[in-house]
Amino acid sequence: MHALQQKIREEGIVLSEQVLKVDAFLNHQIDPQLMHAIGAEFARRFEGTGVTKIVTLEASGIAPAVMTGLIMGVPVIFARKHASLTLTEHLLVAEVYSFTKQHNSMVAISPRHLGADDHVLIIDDFLANGRAAQALISIIQQAGATLAGLGIVIEKSFQAGRAELDAQGYRVESLARVSSLASGRVTFLD
Amino acid sequence: MHALQQKIREEGIVLSEQVLKVDAFLNHQIDPQLMHAIGAEFARRFEGTGVTKIVTLEASGIAPAVMTGLIMGVPVIFARKHASLTLTEHLLVAEVYSFTKQHNSMVAISPRHLGADDHVLIIDDFLANGRAAQALISIIQQAGATLAGLGIVIEKSFQAGRAELDAQGYRVESLARVSSLASGRVTFLD
Repeated sequence: MHALQQKIREEGIVLSEQVLKVDAFLNHQIDPQLMHAIGAEFARRFEGTGVTKIVTLEASGIAPAVMTGLIMGVPVIFARKHASLTLTEHLLVAEVYSFTKQHNSMVAISPRHLGADDHVLIIDDFLANGRAAQALISIIQQAGATLAGLGIVIEKSFQAGRAELDAQGYRVESLARVSSLASGRVTFLD
Repeated sequence: MHALQQKIREEGIVLSEQVLKVDAFLNHQIDPQLMHAIGAEFARRFEGTGVTKIVTLEASGIAPAVMTGLIMGVPVIFARKHASLTLTEHLLVAEVYSFTKQHNSMVAISPRHLGADDHVLIIDDFLANGRAAQALISIIQQAGATLAGLGIVIEKSFQAGRAELDAQGYRVESLARVSSLASGRVTFLD
């Protein structure tokens, strides 16, 4: 996706060979027009696949997910990272290790909003080691739902997440595939 | 806003006289079409006020904020509730006490994305005791920016937040004003 690659080149900051900071338009400040274009592109790629629901993870996945849901005409659920007093019922939970934050946390979805009739599209801002994606897949399986595929805004293709999802047979559509962050530069796969 | 009131009546769950659970369309599962209508209504109410940026708080404020930003054509910033390794620079911070979660937490915005030239619209999902709103106002003041007003999806008018903001002279536009949750029923102010 050209507009996204251009935005990454112009406003992304390479913090290390592992970390790309995109808080100017995705992770802290959000560019709503770009998110809408991203939603349109995910909707185009997954058109006709029978998606009934989009699942993402708070907080940075919400903006691209809700734009995709708007265009596809389906509800969005964001998995919560910690229980709150208004979300204390029986939950579908999975553990996720964050390499960025270096700790384990739980993510949860209420089974009232996800069931065996659902065909789910996962949307997330980043795919790196794939821990968040695998946790969401586990929750979708616990719900008895099926997976249409994963739509990723930025994939760090040099980390293990994409290869693992490919090996598991899941369809992954990444709008920007970063092959390297070496020498302070962003290199794309295509 | 009639469509929002109807959705609250149909899908909102009154957990106590203080707590309204709207995780079917706002706080966990999100209705993107309703969020777009909410964004259009905020854009209409704040049209011509010179808003340059929208500020919200992760996670539930993001969906209505990004739809408002899409329609108004301005960027959105979501304040983060905890620092991450990719957001460690100098930050504008404020403390917020959550009555729902019963603890203090810090919220933060990077000064790289908010400055003295900005005229800010705060968007949030709930206004109850106003702790989150006051924290965001503090951060906006620290940045030297000015406040156009606050757009609230659901206001619990029987709690202290609205009256305090009115007394401070801020413009508050709430799309659903709940006057009571007594007897397990949602009663609206208008």
